[in-house]
Amino acid sequence: MTTTELLERVRSFTADRRWLQRDGEASARGPVPVPTPLQQSFHQEGLANWWLPADCGGRGVALRDGVDLVSELAYADAGTAFTLFISILGTTMVDLFGSTALRRTLLEPLALRGGYCATLASEEAAGSELLRTATVASPSGAELSLTGEKFFSTNADFADFLVVTATDADEEHLAVVVPRDTPGIHIVKRWQLRGLPASATYQVSLRDCRVPRENVLSGHGLRILEVGLNTSRILMAASAVGVARRIRDLCLDYAAHKRVHGTLLEAHPVFAAKLARIETTIMVMRNQCLSAAEEFDALARLPDGATALLRTGSLKSALAAKLFCGRAGWEIATTGTEMFGGLGYTQDSPMGDLADDMRYVSIVEGGEDVLQELLYTRHVLPPERRT
Amino acid sequence: MTTTELLERVRSFTADRRWLQRDGEASARGPVPVPTPLQQSFHQEGLANWWLPADCGGRGVALRDGVDLVSELAYADAGTAFTLFISILGTTMVDLFGSTALRRTLLEPLALRGGYCATLASEEAAGSELLRTATVASPSGAELSLTGEKFFSTNADFADFLVVTATDADEEHLAVVVPRDTPGIHIVKRWQLRGLPASATYQVSLRDCRVPRENVLSGHGLRILEVGLNTSRILMAASAVGVARRIRDLCLDYAAHKRVHGTLLEAHPVFAAKLARIETTIMVMRNQCLSAAEEFDALARLPDGATALLRTGSLKSALAAKLFCGRAGWEIATTGTEMFGGLGYTQDSPMGDLADDMRYVSIVEGGEDVLQELLYTRHVLPPERRT
Amino acid sequence: MTTTELLERVRSFTADRRWLQRDGEASARGPVPVPTPLQQSFHQEGLANWWLPADCGGRGVALRDGVDLVSELAYADAGTAFTLFISILGTTMVDLFGSTALRRTLLEPLALRGGYCATLASEEAAGSELLRTATVASPSGAELSLTGEKFFSTNADFADFLVVTATDADEEHLAVVVPRDTPGIHIVKRWQLRGLPASATYQVSLRDCRVPRENVLSGHGLRILEVGLNTSRILMAASAVGVARRIRDLCLDYAAHKRVHGTLLEAHPVFAAKLARIETTIMVMRNQCLSAAEEFDALARLPDGATALLRTGSLKSALAAKLFCGRAGWEIATTGTEMFGGLGYTQDSPMGDLADDMRYVSIVEGGEDVLQELLYTRHVLPPERRT
Amino acid sequence: MTTTELLERVRSFTADRRWLQRDGEASARGPVPVPTPLQQSFHQEGLANWWLPADCGGRGVALRDGVDLVSELAYADAGTAFTLFISILGTTMVDLFGSTALRRTLLEPLALRGGYCATLASEEAAGSELLRTATVASPSGAELSLTGEKFFSTNADFADFLVVTATDADEEHLAVVVPRDTPGIHIVKRWQLRGLPASATYQVSLRDCRVPRENVLSGHGLRILEVGLNTSRILMAASAVGVARRIRDLCLDYAAHKRVHGTLLEAHPVFAAKLARIETTIMVMRNQCLSAAEEFDALARLPDGATALLRTGSLKSALAAKLFCGRAGWEIATTGTEMFGGLGYTQDSPMGDLADDMRYVSIVEGGEDVLQELLYTRHVLPPERRT
Repeated sequence: MTTTELLERVRSFTADRRWLQRDGEASARGPVPVPTPLQQSFHQEGLANWWLPADCGGRGVALRDGVDLVSELAYADAGTAFTLFISILGTTMVDLFGSTALRRTLLEPLALRGGYCATLASEEAAGSELLRTATVASPSGAELSLTGEKFFSTNADFADFLVVTATDADEEHLAVVVPRDTPGIHIVKRWQLRGLPASATYQVSLRDCRVPRENVLSGHGLRILEVGLNTSRILMAASAVGVARRIRDLCLDYAAHKRVHGTLLEAHPVFAAKLARIETTIMVMRNQCLSAAEEFDALARLPDGATALLRTGSLKSALAAKLFCGRAGWEIATTGTEMFGGLGYTQDSPMGDLADDMRYVSIVEGGEDVLQELLYTRHVLPPERRT
Repeated sequence: MTTTELLERVRSFTADRRWLQRDGEASARGPVPVPTPLQQSFHQEGLANWWLPADCGGRGVALRDGVDLVSELAYADAGTAFTLFISILGTTMVDLFGSTALRRTLLEPLALRGGYCATLASEEAAGSELLRTATVASPSGAELSLTGEKFFSTNADFADFLVVTATDADEEHLAVVVPRDTPGIHIVKRWQLRGLPASATYQVSLRDCRVPRENVLSGHGLRILEVGLNTSRILMAASAVGVARRIRDLCLDYAAHKRVHGTLLEAHPVFAAKLARIETTIMVMRNQCLSAAEEFDALARLPDGATALLRTGSLKSALAAKLFCGRAGWEIATTGTEMFGGLGYTQDSPMGDLADDMRYVSIVEGGEDVLQELLYTRHVLPPERRT
Repeated sequence: MTTTELLERVRSFTADRRWLQRDGEASARGPVPVPTPLQQSFHQEGLANWWLPADCGGRGVALRDGVDLVSELAYADAGTAFTLFISILGTTMVDLFGSTALRRTLLEPLALRGGYCATLASEEAAGSELLRTATVASPSGAELSLTGEKFFSTNADFADFLVVTATDADEEHLAVVVPRDTPGIHIVKRWQLRGLPASATYQVSLRDCRVPRENVLSGHGLRILEVGLNTSRILMAASAVGVARRIRDLCLDYAAHKRVHGTLLEAHPVFAAKLARIETTIMVMRNQCLSAAEEFDALARLPDGATALLRTGSLKSALAAKLFCGRAGWEIATTGTEMFGGLGYTQDSPMGDLADDMRYVSIVEGGEDVLQELLYTRHVLPPERRT
Repeated sequence: MTTTELLERVRSFTADRRWLQRDGEASARGPVPVPTPLQQSFHQEGLANWWLPADCGGRGVALRDGVDLVSELAYADAGTAFTLFISILGTTMVDLFGSTALRRTLLEPLALRGGYCATLASEEAAGSELLRTATVASPSGAELSLTGEKFFSTNADFADFLVVTATDADEEHLAVVVPRDTPGIHIVKRWQLRGLPASATYQVSLRDCRVPRENVLSGHGLRILEVGLNTSRILMAASAVGVARRIRDLCLDYAAHKRVHGTLLEAHPVFAAKLARIETTIMVMRNQCLSAAEEFDALARLPDGATALLRTGSLKSALAAKLFCGRAGWEIATTGTEMFGGLGYTQDSPMGDLADDMRYVSIVEGGEDVLQELLYTRHVLPPERRT
């Protein structure tokens, strides 16, 4: 199946289920059990985890091509998109920095039968300052024992395996694979998010979770995490493109019937100016996502791609994609929620839900302040002037 | 009781009930029955409808002094503030343009025993274009019969009386007082709003509601409505000040404990810059509210105040207050929802609720496009160039 | 002469000289000799220094009333406005913190015959961080000798006297009055500003300038300076109102003749939306200026006004006025320069000059970063948490 | 010479002449004679008109590769960049829609010996509404006679040939090539622009300028113009990238030496946040330029590229590039002019010049309102709903 065909499959998958945003599973917009039947069927139809490498039985779809796939999913429902793509964060770490055995054991099932992966990095005190990981990895014979409290982890409850960041006795940062059925993993709670009702993010406690030492990925744990975050941040940005397109289309639908001063709203110059700006922004957002994804793909395709990515860590283009799309997407959502008059402030219009969904792009996996500081230190300040 | 004392009373009223935003009546943030026990007790304590004129037994608090009262109420809960002040829209119309008998009959009970008034102006097709009122007022003997569908009306279910806009056989616009127990008033539904759970806005149907002709207010109905809207729009803007102050305080509380790079967030220059901007904006918002309210008060105090206000209709300052505070308040809410990291995207933080509450200021009683057009036509374009 | 009459006089003074922005003295928009003949005639007509206290022969016009005076002057020419009002910074310091003798000697001539005062505070290294004053005040018998390099000082060349900030041997900060004809004052250069061609700002060198010890104002020098800056910052903000009003009127004039798609631009909804926003912003800006000025006036009128002001230093309202009007004025200038198509990018349109003039409001006497930090530290952070 | 080599040549060309922005030819920032010696040497070194097709002796550099070339030139001096790239507007029209003879006669000399082309489209009344062309093309034997007044035309004085839009007797829109030495071309004046001192834009009068009928390009004149404008608008957007990069570097240079509170400005978090945002924006701007240029290249490379481009006219991506880069570049310039304290408001800092240069991107060749309307009508509104 070519990428174009895959995109078509995804489009037809979402097309007749576009109602899910409002009327179906997520109708009350309270959180629904995740994975939803719809998400499960996405896995059953063999569409899931499209990015997994061919040598592990995956489709090997490039990150660049993933941008439009995620945009399409998010057009239908951003929470579903998030649930379906966020495994890329952990699988990318395993794919690039895991042993051959780990890659085969963990990635093949996800490619062939579907399934999820979760990453456990954030902690309450650390927040987005990942260097301050308090989760500890202690040697225990041939094994490693992990203990710590992880704050936000999407998909952790139903994932097949977890990637956990921790610090060992030498204060080294590690990224460690932990099968989900390892004893000692406790779901503290599911967070009640402001949007994305068809996604699920958990607080997780680890108590003496033992895994073989082979489960430690090769390289500095936080740098490995940064490499993985490039993929999920770019796809979060891509999901903003999808939600923005949906908002644009809802505005156009409304304007095709709403009358102002006796003419259709769609013929009103102020409406036209707003929509032109939204359209411009959507295009600029998408191009930034595509360009960042291309950069990641190009590095990953190098013979020493894993090393090159590890050296770079957070790509400037990936940070820029998330920063820009988060901010620009929010401006579009703001315009959208004001477009429908009083109706836009009611549950009769989906606009408020779409704005709630859009909000996560600026917040999850690093807010603006955290990412701007990272981008400045790594990519703006000349190397000799960094501290 | 002086205004300062009244403000103190309101402050102590809200002080020990600040939890209501989250933990009390509105805890689930689903809509609650309105009026809430808290709102009822506000009436029972004799604090309600502070603006009613002294000659009708009211406190005669000037609109200017109402700005800080509403800000204080909205600091605690914007929905409660809205429920408690929105009667001013209708009572101002009755006060200025009603007969002596109407003023006494309608306003005295509200001043002495508490109670509510609702205004029925918006219609589905008309939206904010009020000129296109489809509700009809037909003569029926000595009475007037009102029939029509009204789209958004806050407090309509439990109000003591309604002020309804309608068109008569001569295409004249009228504003007519309708006691709530008049036969033919049907509550179609309560809207599910995106915020303000402790307020209630209804769709209302009128079928042959008969009232004496004396219930028609003196003057062009839509102009009368515009005069009343000056008061409610200014107080909506004032409620934005209250919500903004609450957001500021929550940010400061958080920053007093949250650590970034080993120092408190409150000592971080980027945080400082954001808070300085919020503080600046809050001050500017409040001053615009005060100035607009002063202009209204000054006109209303003139010997021919009602005539002067009717001639002006929508005050530039009132339009500016709502436009500016809606927009500036939303910027503050946007900053606020990004301040708390991932927590800010969960129901564990009240930020999202405050943002939802803030949103109404830009939307209810005329969105930006509608009000800007009005402001331009009436107050920017020189009179001889208006069409 | 009442304030209203004074405002009328100023209006008629500027009315027939509105051309000065472009065609007259400042036509080439290169810097012109300052004071200009026009500015001189303002002094000769007895309009100058309207704020000086009555007990020194001045008009005693309150700062609040100065807001519209300055707006009117800046409507005609912001550089002229700046030249004419900036003396308030130094004279306020002398008025509030100078001895009776100093007040009489220095202020009476300015009130009766016109004239200028300049303040020498900024230094190259210090920039807006005034605490790091490197200018030294050393005792020399009964006199004080001042030596240092001052970076930016408006009116310094032709002022009658200067107010200089310096540090003495005990690291105390002083504010010292220095008559302009004191030996040792050297004008290093006149800065070539980006705008305000009819104003003049100088770099000044002080070499062993000797003045009597009585010339030292009473109080901490930098706090005294902050008190004075309240007045000049509020009037800078007021000048932004004037320039903004001019931009609005030029847009309206243009739109009254320019045709788009066969109708006048003034009837185009996008133009209307822009002008409504400009008008809203102008009103909000002015109200913030008025409110800040009222606060200053109220404090200054207290029996212990000087002490009260010294304790407060930089008023939150004055900082907010400058911050807000600088930013909001710049948005208006940005809109203005885009309004005229290609013409707006040529010298045939005054828009670019007006934008250049507007720019100073955000930059001179403290940029956004400096003022926001000050506002946060002094007025947002609770006292017990300041460091 | 590969594109990379060409880019290197341009880089070394500008590297040792970076001073030209301030100290050299354009030092006074008054307009200088154009072409400048520097621009002439660019032509003499064979670097000019890099986009001309290989079959006319040109380098055939794709528009995509031109983006970084122009960014590099504009980094040194935006006016020089504009002078050097704006010929692409006219030559693209001739290349795609001119006869073989015209292509050879006109483009070969420009490729081989350097030289300029100017486009005469805008008119005073028409402004950016190009449909209302009042210039008339009348038949005169075998020739066509052109008469009209053209408002803004860059390079017209010293161009080798002009491309003129006109209307014939049948109200058909034409684009006609006019050699510069044709009798009847009169330069009315050189406009005094607000920035870009090393560029020259003229008002031009045409009086009975006779050219062979073969000089009429094939296709609807305005659509041909739109096709050409895609290239110049994208390169204007690219010049915004160059100016923005220059501003960023000046900020970084300043921050490497400026101290705030005892530490370098470059270590200040608020500075870091601003620079991170600038860097993000620069990257997003460039990607939009590249993407738009790629779309143009792809269409132009099609066998029926000219037809495809004519059918499309203004590309959405090209409009988006200009709209976005104009707006985002201006935000960067605004930040830049506030970064240097008072110095930034003087001629001692180049920031004001850079802001003046940046301004043209939003204004020249269609302001925001005009382009947004075009983008909405052509690319947002579904085809069946366009009027």
